[in-house]
Amino acid sequence: MCQPDVVSDAVSAPPVCILGLGLIGGSLLRAAVAAGRDGWGWNRSTPTVDAARADGFDADTDLATVLRRAADARALIVVAVPMPAVDAALAAIAEHAPDCPITDVVSVKAEVAAAVARHGLQDRFVGGHPMAGTSESGWEAGDPELFRDAVWVVSADDGVDPSIWSQVARLALDCGSVVVPAESREHDAAVARISHLPHVLAEALALSGAAGGDLALGLAAGSFRDGTRVAGSAPGLVRAMCEGNRSALLTALDETLDVLNRARAELADRGTLAELVESGHGARLRYENRERWTITGIEPGTTEDWRERMRDAGRRGGVLRP
Amino acid sequence: MCQPDVVSDAVSAPPVCILGLGLIGGSLLRAAVAAGRDGWGWNRSTPTVDAARADGFDADTDLATVLRRAADARALIVVAVPMPAVDAALAAIAEHAPDCPITDVVSVKAEVAAAVARHGLQDRFVGGHPMAGTSESGWEAGDPELFRDAVWVVSADDGVDPSIWSQVARLALDCGSVVVPAESREHDAAVARISHLPHVLAEALALSGAAGGDLALGLAAGSFRDGTRVAGSAPGLVRAMCEGNRSALLTALDETLDVLNRARAELADRGTLAELVESGHGARLRYENRERWTITGIEPGTTEDWRERMRDAGRRGGVLRP
Repeated sequence: MCQPDVVSDAVSAPPVCILGLGLIGGSLLRAAVAAGRDGWGWNRSTPTVDAARADGFDADTDLATVLRRAADARALIVVAVPMPAVDAALAAIAEHAPDCPITDVVSVKAEVAAAVARHGLQDRFVGGHPMAGTSESGWEAGDPELFRDAVWVVSADDGVDPSIWSQVARLALDCGSVVVPAESREHDAAVARISHLPHVLAEALALSGAAGGDLALGLAAGSFRDGTRVAGSAPGLVRAMCEGNRSALLTALDETLDVLNRARAELADRGTLAELVESGHGARLRYENRERWTITGIEPGTTEDWRERMRDAGRRGGVLRP
Repeated sequence: MCQPDVVSDAVSAPPVCILGLGLIGGSLLRAAVAAGRDGWGWNRSTPTVDAARADGFDADTDLATVLRRAADARALIVVAVPMPAVDAALAAIAEHAPDCPITDVVSVKAEVAAAVARHGLQDRFVGGHPMAGTSESGWEAGDPELFRDAVWVVSADDGVDPSIWSQVARLALDCGSVVVPAESREHDAAVARISHLPHVLAEALALSGAAGGDLALGLAAGSFRDGTRVAGSAPGLVRAMCEGNRSALLTALDETLDVLNRARAELADRGTLAELVESGHGARLRYENRERWTITGIEPGTTEDWRERMRDAGRRGGVLRP
């Protein structure tokens, strides 16, 4: 198999400085160190930092100190705090480590990119989103294998720096993920469809079942159980995720309301659900039969259009592999 | 634990005559015989009957012969053919075995009950619906354990005969299920919510994902996979199930469209999904924490209101156990 240059050993693998040591950041610190990278982390909570240290990791509660160390080492800074804390993290980076390469592992990409631009850090930033997680949270829930075989989106927006892009991709690959290049807005539109809309529909389905009372809930079997599973997620997390991607989610929801209204009319007027069921079945089969292919021959920075070519490849199901 | 009279050994356990030896009917013949009942079956297909015989079961392709035998033995006849074949099966019963007790294992209850009434068999009929199945079909897919620990709805409609009701309940219990008493229309409304609506939403979600192309499908993880699982079911089966319960499904779908439209407005106008997510989460918890309780002290036929009391118990989560 061809080894894409983006992940060759020639790509710089600087230390990683991780801001936020919850499930994702904590797993990332473990995975990066396990992959042989130098790495350290910050968390505002003393118990979290104590727990990380007790597990043998390098962690601190002093953000300025952690970031000055990153500046000295030219570390890759990873923003792994919840969305509401992103602004403060970026302000500290702008003050203490403005020349470091920066990425993030926060879910919605356009919102983070806008915050980055507000702090004047866009030239040093390449967004990221590992599609991994569990229903747990916190340092203790972390797992160095969390990203193994996961998909890690790396934003290939206009203007991103090729060497920083390659560094971010290499970190993802070092953690065992495959990399999908995507434009931030396209990423957000995609996750609205396959992650946020499923939550909205699961909540609505759960409400319909409960409205049927104990008789309906007592008859519920696999289709209801699976269709409502993610309604069991913590409401705060679901809201943060969905509300943070409002514009893209509204687009996906409006499309789905159109589909459901058409199906409703078809059923009421002609007694059939043929269009919905046939096309929905075809869509599910397309999902089941999707295949990843390996992107080769696109080297960040060597051509003017490498970003467009990366995005186009990601759009067509391509991934970068180690 | 109190033994409800409905399932005591005093309840008649006549032979069972099963019309249709597909997944459900074939599993039922196996389960009834395994429980020590005498039983035989009919199927229009010679290969199916040959397969059943090869497995040591009593089966025939001659419907009139099978039904005359049922009449002689006062067998409980179980209609286990697909909905489109129900009318012909009932016509044959009316001709050859009009005095036998009759039940069915077809999903939508009001439609079957109406067909039964058209054939003048309503005095001998008590509808049933075992909430069990797999994605497979045919005699070969049958399993005597298919109904073990499943919920089996037995219709407690106005006017049903208490001794036939008890016979049908006993058959369900002999197969290892628990029995939920319910009025036919309430059953249909409940399954619209917990079985048919989940299929409609799964199809719509699959379409939204596929509309996002290979990028979206490539990023899809657990929430999309589980939320679209039943869109993988054979379209013909999904349509038959949903279209056969049109009226109740339209009611459930309209409620859900209202819920989604309100959520859409909340998100667009105020940037929040609080109402949907909080209430949907509560509904899922109610489902997760539902508890069955055992109905005791209602003996079919001993009081004027036993049917209402059974329905009320079923509505509140009660089940009959062996």
